[in-house]
Amino acid sequence: MRKVGVALLGLGVVGGGTYKTITEHREFYQKTQNLDLVVESVLECDEEKIKALGVEEEKVASNIAEVVMNPDVNIVVECIGGTEAAREYVLAALRAGKTVVTSNKLLYAKHSEELERVAKRYNAGLHLEASCMGGVPVVRTLMSGLQANVITSFVGIVNGTTNYILSELSEQRGTFEEILEKVHKIGIAEADEEYDLEGYDAVYKLSILASLSFQTKIPVEKIYREGITRITEEDFRCAKDLGYCIKLLAIGKRREDSVEVRVHPALVPKEHPLAGVNGSYNAMFLTGDSVGDVLLSGRGAGALPSGSAIVSDVLFAANHYEDISTAFKHPEIANKNVKVITDFSSKYFLRFQIEGTTSKVLSLFTQKGVAIQKFIHRESEGELLVITHETKESVIKSVIAKIEERQLAKTESLLRVI
Amino acid sequence: MRKVGVALLGLGVVGGGTYKTITEHREFYQKTQNLDLVVESVLECDEEKIKALGVEEEKVASNIAEVVMNPDVNIVVECIGGTEAAREYVLAALRAGKTVVTSNKLLYAKHSEELERVAKRYNAGLHLEASCMGGVPVVRTLMSGLQANVITSFVGIVNGTTNYILSELSEQRGTFEEILEKVHKIGIAEADEEYDLEGYDAVYKLSILASLSFQTKIPVEKIYREGITRITEEDFRCAKDLGYCIKLLAIGKRREDSVEVRVHPALVPKEHPLAGVNGSYNAMFLTGDSVGDVLLSGRGAGALPSGSAIVSDVLFAANHYEDISTAFKHPEIANKNVKVITDFSSKYFLRFQIEGTTSKVLSLFTQKGVAIQKFIHRESEGELLVITHETKESVIKSVIAKIEERQLAKTESLLRVI
Repeated sequence: MRKVGVALLGLGVVGGGTYKTITEHREFYQKTQNLDLVVESVLECDEEKIKALGVEEEKVASNIAEVVMNPDVNIVVECIGGTEAAREYVLAALRAGKTVVTSNKLLYAKHSEELERVAKRYNAGLHLEASCMGGVPVVRTLMSGLQANVITSFVGIVNGTTNYILSELSEQRGTFEEILEKVHKIGIAEADEEYDLEGYDAVYKLSILASLSFQTKIPVEKIYREGITRITEEDFRCAKDLGYCIKLLAIGKRREDSVEVRVHPALVPKEHPLAGVNGSYNAMFLTGDSVGDVLLSGRGAGALPSGSAIVSDVLFAANHYEDISTAFKHPEIANKNVKVITDFSSKYFLRFQIEGTTSKVLSLFTQKGVAIQKFIHRESEGELLVITHETKESVIKSVIAKIEERQLAKTESLLRVI
Repeated sequence: MRKVGVALLGLGVVGGGTYKTITEHREFYQKTQNLDLVVESVLECDEEKIKALGVEEEKVASNIAEVVMNPDVNIVVECIGGTEAAREYVLAALRAGKTVVTSNKLLYAKHSEELERVAKRYNAGLHLEASCMGGVPVVRTLMSGLQANVITSFVGIVNGTTNYILSELSEQRGTFEEILEKVHKIGIAEADEEYDLEGYDAVYKLSILASLSFQTKIPVEKIYREGITRITEEDFRCAKDLGYCIKLLAIGKRREDSVEVRVHPALVPKEHPLAGVNGSYNAMFLTGDSVGDVLLSGRGAGALPSGSAIVSDVLFAANHYEDISTAFKHPEIANKNVKVITDFSSKYFLRFQIEGTTSKVLSLFTQKGVAIQKFIHRESEGELLVITHETKESVIKSVIAKIEERQLAKTESLLRVI
């Protein structure tokens, strides 16, 4: 039986989960994969973590050189996070011809071109399933399950923390602050709150997912981003009344000669497959020109779900060393400057505090050519709720400007609708 | 650019969809896969079908020998169906060292051992994504996305025809006969009605899915099978009242030294992810020891969804000729005689017409050690609805026997609950 040696860089949550997954399944992989998968080396400066997992002392490396020079190491798993040491270490591993498996979305979103170039040059593999949706095998599905399709669009729930918060808020299980505290307590939030709440994490993931789906590099800077902190309790109440829930979405659309890529909260109809994806679950709803709609969902984070993704990548790599880059068969197609649409089209939900008359407000929509799908006038609250048909972002903003200029109403909420 | 020649055996619905998918995406695959994928040969006796697709005359083969001897053919796609000609042709292709991609669940469920042995001997690939859930890449996910996991259980909706019928019945869109007629009219039913309605199609798919999930051959004869024809309108009404819908499920469970494999209708709680899978959609809800719960859903049949699965297999095979058998890394583990549990455990839904007193009926459950989760006594109709906690099939049957023996009630329905 062929022995496959793994090095783990970092033994935090993901690295620890990977260590456990590999060691506890050794016999299972011998039987089902015909491979003897063994952790041969770990690089971790926190001795507590090493001790807690029971890693044998002789397997603890003192620096990256020791790891990549180790002839027993075939595959290097990077779970350090960040882009400084992680980039240096991954490049060192690739240059030593080792296949790399990473869970590092930041590293990949920022440095994929460099990493892929080096991987190709040194004939080393580079796999990144765990970087996008934890245990949900969305990368493998895009690469090897639906690759016969032109992916025309996708809508994803890719950040478990915000999805948990929005689910709890929607069920009125506390105020935003209370739920945020709970999220920290159960350990599903990043120390840097903004990273989750303002949609940065989702943007990195979207950059990778859109690049894979549309076969062209989508830089993170070109992705529209809006977090969940501006959503009010009133928005949840209104959404529910209208038959919607609110989700933070990562959306990608393929257009004729351009793409649309955006992260923002949106109203999702109760009957949409994504509406039932609650708590810390992630999901991807994608459309291919042959297959039609496909939904994937599962746990988007956590030690063992991430371990599942990483070790599945490791096993795939061990069986396909020739498959040197999962991300692009053809890196050169990635270099063209893709046009990213900024004035995208969407349906919109608006909540107004009426100051003039409702009919005057509504007529401004019509004047600008915006069709209204439904509206509710709550006379006693002086509130007007509007859901439009699809229209351009620039047009909806000009309608709002006009309404406010004429002091017909105060715009209390503007949210997109899918 | 490497040219990859494909032969299509059969140009029916699936074969035609595959032909279209390949020809319409030629340029796309050149760009994204760095492959020139071309249909080099077709074998189809119906000239109308050949003409309708516009296949060039010189590509039409007159017999299988001509196809497998053609040096331009690298991959043979079998879409004939059945097990006679299909088996012979697939074996001929494998013996000629051609990789085979098939959508034929019957062939695979019945002859997988022979096919895999021959594939291995002649170093030819064998891929079967399209045989299970149409466009949903469940096979690839089990093989290359979640293979780090011990799959502990799965529950699937794998037959689109019955799912469509059950969805329509549940929405009261007609009688069973009317809906069945509609199903034939829109062309999603097999000519042989029993094949779908009595669960045979689901059994073949379950045999493949359970074999892949549990890494052991599950013969079709060992799978418990019950179709949807005994479900009454009253069952739908009661299920709805209790907060359930009814689905035909394919269930696999890994036990200590055995497996459970069964196809039968069951009540599914409204909040379960499978409850929202309606119409001709298929879905797989599976649980892995690391990843937790994962849901995959999409179109389970149709020309283009099946084309998506077949061509994704073709592209995967073209990039991984060394991956000779998708089904088992280790065919020898498949030969042990797995124990299939026949007296499985489940929750149950029972509908009784009360002839004695309700309390006497209920006390018989208690006497046999069956815990009741809820019951509703409809006094005016003399009806008692019971949902039990998990218990063995043999136990619930003995409870029913006792109730009928004592003439306490008439059992009008017995359905399992997940």
